[in-house]
Amino acid sequence: MHTIDTRRIKRVRQFLERAGANALLETHLPNVYYLTGFSGDSGALMLEASTATLFTDGRFAVQAKEEVPGIKLQIHPGSPLGGVSECLHRKRGLRVAISPSRITLAEWTLLKKGVGKGIRWVAVDGVVDQLRAVKDASEIGQIREAARLASEVMEETIRLIRPGLTELELAAEIGYRMRLKGASGESFEAIVAAGPRSALPHARPTSRRIGTNELVVVDLGAILRRYCSDLTRTVHVGRAPARVRRWYQAVQQAQAAAVDAIKPGVAAGAVDAAARRALQRHGLGRYFVHSTGHGIGLEIHEEPRLARNQKRLLEAGNVVTVEPGVYVAGVGGIRIEDDIAVTPRGAEILTTPPRELLEL
Amino acid sequence: MHTIDTRRIKRVRQFLERAGANALLETHLPNVYYLTGFSGDSGALMLEASTATLFTDGRFAVQAKEEVPGIKLQIHPGSPLGGVSECLHRKRGLRVAISPSRITLAEWTLLKKGVGKGIRWVAVDGVVDQLRAVKDASEIGQIREAARLASEVMEETIRLIRPGLTELELAAEIGYRMRLKGASGESFEAIVAAGPRSALPHARPTSRRIGTNELVVVDLGAILRRYCSDLTRTVHVGRAPARVRRWYQAVQQAQAAAVDAIKPGVAAGAVDAAARRALQRHGLGRYFVHSTGHGIGLEIHEEPRLARNQKRLLEAGNVVTVEPGVYVAGVGGIRIEDDIAVTPRGAEILTTPPRELLEL
Repeated sequence: MHTIDTRRIKRVRQFLERAGANALLETHLPNVYYLTGFSGDSGALMLEASTATLFTDGRFAVQAKEEVPGIKLQIHPGSPLGGVSECLHRKRGLRVAISPSRITLAEWTLLKKGVGKGIRWVAVDGVVDQLRAVKDASEIGQIREAARLASEVMEETIRLIRPGLTELELAAEIGYRMRLKGASGESFEAIVAAGPRSALPHARPTSRRIGTNELVVVDLGAILRRYCSDLTRTVHVGRAPARVRRWYQAVQQAQAAAVDAIKPGVAAGAVDAAARRALQRHGLGRYFVHSTGHGIGLEIHEEPRLARNQKRLLEAGNVVTVEPGVYVAGVGGIRIEDDIAVTPRGAEILTTPPRELLEL
Repeated sequence: MHTIDTRRIKRVRQFLERAGANALLETHLPNVYYLTGFSGDSGALMLEASTATLFTDGRFAVQAKEEVPGIKLQIHPGSPLGGVSECLHRKRGLRVAISPSRITLAEWTLLKKGVGKGIRWVAVDGVVDQLRAVKDASEIGQIREAARLASEVMEETIRLIRPGLTELELAAEIGYRMRLKGASGESFEAIVAAGPRSALPHARPTSRRIGTNELVVVDLGAILRRYCSDLTRTVHVGRAPARVRRWYQAVQQAQAAAVDAIKPGVAAGAVDAAARRALQRHGLGRYFVHSTGHGIGLEIHEEPRLARNQKRLLEAGNVVTVEPGVYVAGVGGIRIEDDIAVTPRGAEILTTPPRELLEL
């Protein structure tokens, strides 16, 4: 089914060389999958100059052999790092890159204790994450499909919204329809937040019933063949009062401004600033309490981050969300979110539901 | 809605004192929820001798004020540990307990750098986790309800199984029915694994259609008012061949033996051993590739672990899964799993679907 991706591994080795390392201990499972195709829930990958070894436990032995036929496999009871530690104990001359943001203090202590003096550690974050931030055409194709699926489910969901339905009932429909369309799951538990609850950017669905004359925020994402999508629309049940229309228009402008700012060579922080400026012009800057967007791919939050002061320059192959919002405590919130692929000449919007204010 | 749980916090402080600490930095969100009722997706709790401070970011400011009215709140952009680090910088005389298995090397570096010499760190794992392992009556009541909901959905799901249905379609029904019954979500993505895929203990549902004359493993769990359940049944589509009956009977005996072994004062490892011995008597020991069970509660995997050599003694108030299995690569797998509350005199089985082999 899968095999080790030699092209990706070659790029990792080039990166390691520049960082002064000649080996990589990768413990983050989406990164292990990206390099090897192994999709089990427990594993670590040890890359050396000419070998790659996958450490996992007995539950995933069959799966590992099926998914990564070529790889050297070490089955070890308990944590894969126990196996890594035993294996490294016998090595000499390795300079092993590890990611400080993905190793716990306890794992670090285990590794240091188990490993002899023949090993040097090189702390370097994001070796594989940086590669993953730039998607190839096949990956963008997969995210495009996941975004299309999410768009279909969003349009169906919006048609279902009516007073009396609970947030949870609507969330149930979202998950159900996604899986019937072939999604392996949801990128995250769908957010359905009605009335004052829409002012909570990360609300979880409750048994609260949708009322009349209130905002409903729907934020959903599908995982299709391992790649994530992420999409938000906000509707108003009943005719929207003037201030809601004003807020909606401001968020719509902020979102369009941020999308327009996206092209290769632009700093991620500049896209965030574009959204923020548009909201400030409407006097709503302080109601925008999160960052403008984040990369999507094998994970729902990855590089690059569209946030304040992010100096990283966008490149063709990045895929990001753009999702400014306005949240007024006790009253309600509005968020509009699309998925955007950075192309050589600008941006491609992957999610398609209409962005105009819908009054149901 | 919630308030700080002063009884629990008092017990934490007693524990800290014995560990030589006078403060706790808690970064694990289920633990933060357990002590404060704050259910946001970003937060850290700093407990000192007489104060409790919750650190979170702007997205959760409204929610934090609503959920934890009494608490001292620090809103800080970005990671909550940035806020903690600033706050600790001004402190003197604190001996702060941190959990090495829940702090990354990067976070640890950030804390050490930001904090002056007035702070001493005490590495101690599982302060709050150990408290959480012993549930009070109200928590057991909530898990009982989550287990009842999972049982209902399991019985409905089994009635739906027929050749031609895909694993994903069945998984879609599971999530949908759970939410319609009031679950806020699934404890984990339901496993529906048919035919040879049932030999993968952690298979993810695919578009593979259920065939005739094959095993189907269904492993599902509901989250109801934040508490998890976890339940597995295995059925055979068509009349089971002799060897499948033999395997099934062995797993059933192993599961019953493990459940029978559960009572206060018994080592967690002894329950695991009881299941393993039963399978070994049938010559199937080597096909049981995982441990016998795990605690459930606010998380789907928590203390105590029913695994080899676990010396921890079970106590009334523990709630665990018991889920031995047999997995034969290329052929199929069988797992039977129930949720068990340890009572003062033995055990209460919380999940109810029949355990006999069903041939559909």
